[in-house]
Amino acid sequence: MSLVVVALGGNALLRRGEPVTAQAQRDNIRSAAQALARLLSDGHRLVITHGNGPQVGLLALQGEAAGKAAFPLDVLGAETEGMIGYVLQQELDNAYQPKARFATLLTQIEVDPNDPAFAAPSKPVGSVYSEADARRLAQQRGWAIAPDGEAWRRVVASPRPVRILEIDVIRWLVEQGVTLICAGGGGIPVVQRADGAHVGVEAVIDKDHASGLLAAELKADAFLMLTDVAAVFTGWGTPAQRALGDVTPQALATMDFAAGSMGPKVQAACEFVRRTGGMAGIGALDDAAAILAHQAGTRVVPGQFT
Amino acid sequence: MSLVVVALGGNALLRRGEPVTAQAQRDNIRSAAQALARLLSDGHRLVITHGNGPQVGLLALQGEAAGKAAFPLDVLGAETEGMIGYVLQQELDNAYQPKARFATLLTQIEVDPNDPAFAAPSKPVGSVYSEADARRLAQQRGWAIAPDGEAWRRVVASPRPVRILEIDVIRWLVEQGVTLICAGGGGIPVVQRADGAHVGVEAVIDKDHASGLLAAELKADAFLMLTDVAAVFTGWGTPAQRALGDVTPQALATMDFAAGSMGPKVQAACEFVRRTGGMAGIGALDDAAAILAHQAGTRVVPGQFT
Repeated sequence: MSLVVVALGGNALLRRGEPVTAQAQRDNIRSAAQALARLLSDGHRLVITHGNGPQVGLLALQGEAAGKAAFPLDVLGAETEGMIGYVLQQELDNAYQPKARFATLLTQIEVDPNDPAFAAPSKPVGSVYSEADARRLAQQRGWAIAPDGEAWRRVVASPRPVRILEIDVIRWLVEQGVTLICAGGGGIPVVQRADGAHVGVEAVIDKDHASGLLAAELKADAFLMLTDVAAVFTGWGTPAQRALGDVTPQALATMDFAAGSMGPKVQAACEFVRRTGGMAGIGALDDAAAILAHQAGTRVVPGQFT
Repeated sequence: MSLVVVALGGNALLRRGEPVTAQAQRDNIRSAAQALARLLSDGHRLVITHGNGPQVGLLALQGEAAGKAAFPLDVLGAETEGMIGYVLQQELDNAYQPKARFATLLTQIEVDPNDPAFAAPSKPVGSVYSEADARRLAQQRGWAIAPDGEAWRRVVASPRPVRILEIDVIRWLVEQGVTLICAGGGGIPVVQRADGAHVGVEAVIDKDHASGLLAAELKADAFLMLTDVAAVFTGWGTPAQRALGDVTPQALATMDFAAGSMGPKVQAACEFVRRTGGMAGIGALDDAAAILAHQAGTRVVPGQFT
């Protein structure tokens, strides 16, 4: 039985642009759960992480009327770990017929307070504003803001994950055979103060990097990043466009990728493969089993000198 | 080392009438965490549950603008398990100096779809309305409504907890020495359908009954319900008013209690004591250690024929 860490992309849980309603969320999570149940039926042990972009955006929006009293991003992240984790656990339990144990664990991930990302916030969250409104809110609430197309938005830091606070508990549960959902939304971002205490920070940790750290810490056999795209492509949009199959970190290092969400996925895959010698797959949710069988998606595999 | 299940009342986490802001919530949870850390220092092992009334009310309010697309109560309950569990775990970890392991587990609790509570919804949630508005919303959204003082509110069922879906996982974590937060808000209410699947229901399980079930299933040595009241009183508001100290379920069965939150606490305490022969305490958060030492609060203890 191989241990597989599966990261469900936000776009695997809610179609791009689809509004966050209870029903849309549950329908999409049900499809994802059915794909994951097939992996369980194939005999894989799973640890499952998930994105939370649209959900945290919705909660941030709902809270904006509260102004300075709004809940900070660490608390909103914890809310989405509860909300998405519950629905995913329930749908997975319902989709998998043999009796099995499922659990959802809240997960805090420590970041470095000196991470350069804090000096250059880049991750947009919440509403879009006019420049004037954005500047006013920035002053009132201490936000960083940045243009996003024609509009302006709040931006927050996206620091690197350093340490998973609950890693021992996660490891025990995996050893007990529990199919575990954890580290949702990239984990709840915290820093350790000089006095040793942990406190939440207004940041969003990249889900793929957080999931890759988790997979490496668990010495998983494979790390799957599932999304709504079939594979990693080179030469995207050119006549030379080509889907990558088996590829080494060394080969990937020589290639350019379209901007957007593929960059962090490729980087997280290469780091996992370098640290563990395992396999990292990137591809479509419905191809999960085929990716593990090297028959679909892009598989990052150890090279001779990895 | 004794195992103690501690239920933190909503009023121990947020003062009565205090608005739910991130800061007020964290300040109150910090006080609670300091009281709990003293129990850990005394050598007790803890499993901690908590109320979520004000928080689920706030989320329901924020979602009301979404109308029929609003998230249902099972999902809102899951959100509050994430939100409160995170802050409580972090403050507890910070308040307790020795290195220890803390975790927060999402918890679903099964209720009986034929529970009579579903035919007589009684638990108010969310906003207050005029009678006309309440009647309109009842028709639009299928709500049950009831008068609450001068105003009207939505009311939902408060069925009895029957089974904790994650009980095996909870037991393993307790055996591993983890200080666990679980079953927040009385657990996420679910029913089992005829086809075996679990689905969420629009209900709120009484936190004290859910916590008592958990304590009995774990065969805890003691079950503490902590609130902002020092003890259970007889003859409340009369010259004969008297705080109860050690008392048996048999003696309690002969007494009348002021309406409100004490009734379910006394009932949950008696059920726990009858099922396990352990001790159930009811009293103030800051008296937690003294209650366990039979020096404060009300202690329900086995009688000769319990």
